[in-house]
Amino acid sequence: MFPMREDDVHEIECDEALTEVFSILGKRWSGLILGTLLQRPARFGELARAIDGITESMLSTRLDELQGAGLVEREVIEGPPLATRYRLTPAGRGLQPALLALARWAERHLLRAGARR
Amino acid sequence: MFPMREDDVHEIECDEALTEVFSILGKRWSGLILGTLLQRPARFGELARAIDGITESMLSTRLDELQGAGLVEREVIEGPPLATRYRLTPAGRGLQPALLALARWAERHLLRAGARR
Repeated sequence: MFPMREDDVHEIECDEALTEVFSILGKRWSGLILGTLLQRPARFGELARAIDGITESMLSTRLDELQGAGLVEREVIEGPPLATRYRLTPAGRGLQPALLALARWAERHLLRAGARR
Repeated sequence: MFPMREDDVHEIECDEALTEVFSILGKRWSGLILGTLLQRPARFGELARAIDGITESMLSTRLDELQGAGLVEREVIEGPPLATRYRLTPAGRGLQPALLALARWAERHLLRAGARR
């Protein structure tokens, strides 16, 4: 009889909460848009300039999705001149500790590794 | 003279570390593969079954990318029967606190919101 292996005993499963997370953050640009808005509310053009490589059409699509998910909202600033900005909702701002943890991980494991290459 | 607005003063920027993070996690399935491998090393077929909706070809592509990024490695288990498994490298395991923070955020802000809808 073969010894039992751990992987024959416990079936692994994909975590439900992480599935929800990556239905949002697993789309290109969404994490960067949220991370950039953590700095402060911003106008569409500012976001387009800040996020290197994003097209205006993709930014528009992602902002719609993030508003649909309840993470971003539009605010109208009374003028003159009248302006609209995008800002995080409380749920969106709740991402801050996790995004900080991701940034710390990248600084430790990705940026340094890149510097060694 | 119009009052200065905050957004006229400080240009916002996209964080370099988060750009690195989402060059990996901003690809569909990558975060779920890493999160699932945090449970334990797993064979290809186990991963394909655990991650709902992923195709074998996409899993294969993503595993190659994650190996290229130094986050996942293949291990050969001496037989019989000979088997190969995928496991996280130390850099990949370093994601654990950040993925836990993301899961906690989802439990608080996404799953409950979904239940209310």
